[in-house]
Amino acid sequence: MKLLIPGPVTTSPEVKAAMAQDFAPWDNDFRKLYEQVRARVLAIAGGAADTHTVLGLQGCGHFAAEAALRTFMAPGDKILVPLVGAYAERMARLAREAGRQVVTISVDQNRPLQAKIIADALAADPSISHVGMVYSETGTGVIHDPAPISAVVQAAGRRLIIDAVSAFGALPMDVSAHPALDVVIFTSNKCFEAMPGLSFAVARIDRLDACKGNAGSWSFDYADVYANLLRPNSAGVFRFTPPAQVLASFSVALDLFERDGGQPARLARYLANKAALYDGMIALGLEPCLSRALQGPVIVNIHAPDDAAWDLMGFVDRLKQRGWLISNFYNTPEPSFRVGCIGAITSDDMRAFCAAVDAVLADMGIRNRSARRLAA
Amino acid sequence: MKLLIPGPVTTSPEVKAAMAQDFAPWDNDFRKLYEQVRARVLAIAGGAADTHTVLGLQGCGHFAAEAALRTFMAPGDKILVPLVGAYAERMARLAREAGRQVVTISVDQNRPLQAKIIADALAADPSISHVGMVYSETGTGVIHDPAPISAVVQAAGRRLIIDAVSAFGALPMDVSAHPALDVVIFTSNKCFEAMPGLSFAVARIDRLDACKGNAGSWSFDYADVYANLLRPNSAGVFRFTPPAQVLASFSVALDLFERDGGQPARLARYLANKAALYDGMIALGLEPCLSRALQGPVIVNIHAPDDAAWDLMGFVDRLKQRGWLISNFYNTPEPSFRVGCIGAITSDDMRAFCAAVDAVLADMGIRNRSARRLAA
Repeated sequence: MKLLIPGPVTTSPEVKAAMAQDFAPWDNDFRKLYEQVRARVLAIAGGAADTHTVLGLQGCGHFAAEAALRTFMAPGDKILVPLVGAYAERMARLAREAGRQVVTISVDQNRPLQAKIIADALAADPSISHVGMVYSETGTGVIHDPAPISAVVQAAGRRLIIDAVSAFGALPMDVSAHPALDVVIFTSNKCFEAMPGLSFAVARIDRLDACKGNAGSWSFDYADVYANLLRPNSAGVFRFTPPAQVLASFSVALDLFERDGGQPARLARYLANKAALYDGMIALGLEPCLSRALQGPVIVNIHAPDDAAWDLMGFVDRLKQRGWLISNFYNTPEPSFRVGCIGAITSDDMRAFCAAVDAVLADMGIRNRSARRLAA
Repeated sequence: MKLLIPGPVTTSPEVKAAMAQDFAPWDNDFRKLYEQVRARVLAIAGGAADTHTVLGLQGCGHFAAEAALRTFMAPGDKILVPLVGAYAERMARLAREAGRQVVTISVDQNRPLQAKIIADALAADPSISHVGMVYSETGTGVIHDPAPISAVVQAAGRRLIIDAVSAFGALPMDVSAHPALDVVIFTSNKCFEAMPGLSFAVARIDRLDACKGNAGSWSFDYADVYANLLRPNSAGVFRFTPPAQVLASFSVALDLFERDGGQPARLARYLANKAALYDGMIALGLEPCLSRALQGPVIVNIHAPDDAAWDLMGFVDRLKQRGWLISNFYNTPEPSFRVGCIGAITSDDMRAFCAAVDAVLADMGIRNRSARRLAA
């Protein structure tokens, strides 16, 4: 079975094998493993050891996002979240429920976020302390380049928090190039192709020091996570029991990442996956939701066929019988199905998947493959 | 390598094998797996489907404890935490940093918690809404029976939160017998002998309904976790990406748990492990920190030998070379080493471990094995 979802992704046999071991998380060998992982992630993120640090946190990307919002925003602070899709909505909700002030702005979700919109919003409200953005929005499949946003945030003297959960590892990230960036978060189970259960933050050390006492949550306090790593008695140790097997699988996944050529090679493979999928869908008479120019390399939404025989669950189940797992829920206003291009998969897999889609649509008796659109 | 630590524990080969698979957490087969796990845990906890529910949460026991404190305590509520050891201290800190009022009382950590102390404290302060207790305190190895505490909390009209992280599965738990109990929390990686990364709460449904809006954290809101499970579109699904492999390993661990005879059989095995260890240590001339009557079946602390050649790290490293991993840090005021009795291990393992301790002490040139005590 191959997973074509935007994470957890299909993993390599070596990554799976690393999960099937017992570990004592306070053991000295395990500490070394964690320290090595932190150093490797820092290098991939473009951080220097004297300005940035890498912090692991148990749990999922939402937990890392909440910890980032709580740690780097004081309780009275206000964050601007441009609503580029489902994960931006979630960031806004996490901040709001954590008692932070949130301002959202509606934007065209089917195109990259425009820096001018952010600059204008910051100019209009000097009380906004932070901007929160999603690098790769898995709701839509659009990539939002942090560089122009970071520049206007910096120019306005505000701070930036980036959710790079489905971006980091495949899309470029150089934390040193973004002085306004407090923290970028990601998880083990997306573009690094490891297992779910562990998240990471790449954070500015000066901001961690300045943000002590903000969090209002011991569990989600990155300043305390960092302070703990520096204590002689707990150097290099998670504060609480980590999913040790996931860290081990992540370490093996980093071996494969580096062996394969790092971020540029990973992006190239995902772009090839996306191209094979995009072209294949069009060749089948199906219509992707985004134009070729706007379509990112992580997730492709494809319009559901405008045929009475269409049924998403039936489609998903038939693909599953053929060895392909895709998402079984809608994430776009118009009915669509979505297919992930990330994970330990190749463009050959994507072509085989397209053939499976063709066969399944025929099985289902679908004659009209053109896009089903909502009435205006 | 066998882990003799209070979790993560040594797991069975079947449990490890379940980790080495890819899963899509929203897939219908995975939903079924989660629903089955929830129903099996509910039965083990003595809960009925109309009064109690089982809720999974990504992360470690501390996260589950914070979620329990945030959900079942309103922001102005006050919790009484008797300081029975390191994990009680942690519960108090989690509540305090979450903005809840906390009252602690010092108690004799080397004996089971006395109900009268709790009754008196509740009588003295009517503003205390909750009592928070640790069932099995892995700091000391003492078991604190919830039954008498639950009775006085009920009599005083207050509510109870139990941290059963290193107890549930091995020690008896019948949530239906404790009407004052809001929630009991535990993790996958202790007495159920699965992998770390996932925690669970067994919670009263009426209290979940009454506690909506308390949490001040979307991630740690059990009321929202529960509401999400009931929504037609997300029935039986984690809100956020779960450590799916850990859930799969937990399901296999439940198979083994039931095959072996459930909680009574698990307790019997751990008691036999503890007895073999306790007797073995005494036979070697070493001195456990607790008397036989007070020593629980989860973790045994043993006084460090009063010999200049003693060195905890050297001792731990030598045992590791022989295939045994124990904790490498002190958790008691006087120097000690601690050995876990839980996990997929038997009393034969414990006897082999005692022989290894004997050999290592000889290797280290330790002549005096009697207890090293702090100057009064």
